[in-house]
Amino acid sequence: MFTDEYYMKMALQQAQIAFEKEEVPIGCVIVSNDRILAKTHNLTETLNDVTAHAEMQAITSAANYLGGKYLQNCTMYVTLEPCVMCSGALIWSQISKVVIGARDEQRGFINKHLNLHPKTEIVVGVMEHECSVIVKEFFKNKR
Amino acid sequence: MFTDEYYMKMALQQAQIAFEKEEVPIGCVIVSNDRILAKTHNLTETLNDVTAHAEMQAITSAANYLGGKYLQNCTMYVTLEPCVMCSGALIWSQISKVVIGARDEQRGFINKHLNLHPKTEIVVGVMEHECSVIVKEFFKNKR
Repeated sequence: MFTDEYYMKMALQQAQIAFEKEEVPIGCVIVSNDRILAKTHNLTETLNDVTAHAEMQAITSAANYLGGKYLQNCTMYVTLEPCVMCSGALIWSQISKVVIGARDEQRGFINKHLNLHPKTEIVVGVMEHECSVIVKEFFKNKR
Repeated sequence: MFTDEYYMKMALQQAQIAFEKEEVPIGCVIVSNDRILAKTHNLTETLNDVTAHAEMQAITSAANYLGGKYLQNCTMYVTLEPCVMCSGALIWSQISKVVIGARDEQRGFINKHLNLHPKTEIVVGVMEHECSVIVKEFFKNKR
């Protein structure tokens, strides 16, 4: 039951909440041993803060929940490939696994030849279509 | 009077406050038209949060002060070269100028072949010696 798709669907629900707030629709969930530590969505417009990406909030929130800054035994589900900033935060967090929905060829960390922490497993393409469509839909409406 | 050295000294005072809290001693100041918008220091240990670098707090704080997320006409003074995470945040902020004290060859963004925003001017090496010594002193005490 608690598959990667299960948690990515939850991250997508967060992206949908962002969409309704006119935020770029990206959602994120952090899970440890099937316990949900954080559910977040992008809030850069609402908070007037470029650092308020879903992933940044999730890292802070999960660390707060755990009472420690390292996210060992944690998995992040994120609907869009993290940017340079968020990949840097993920490196510092030493998170165990990152599951990515859709690629972001232009802004994502992969094409910048950045790596996450050596301990971090990366999975790409879980519910890729749905994760990609919501972002495309958002920018289509903006034009 | 309001030279780069003047503001870097202020950033160094912030690094000193971090040192006294047993935080990696890095300090940061953001200035716009000789108005100080933010003075921050690294708080990753105190807040149990890998994202609580001096630069991240300063970007959030300055944007809050300005009531907008872009840091146009702003200069950041930071005692140590920003990491991947902080350089990513600086890109999003479109800040006008970043003045760096000492290089961080291992963790800094420059050796990762990352660029800041095309609009951002970068100055490296203001009070380099003092900015470097405080970090070395900190890690010497830790061993």
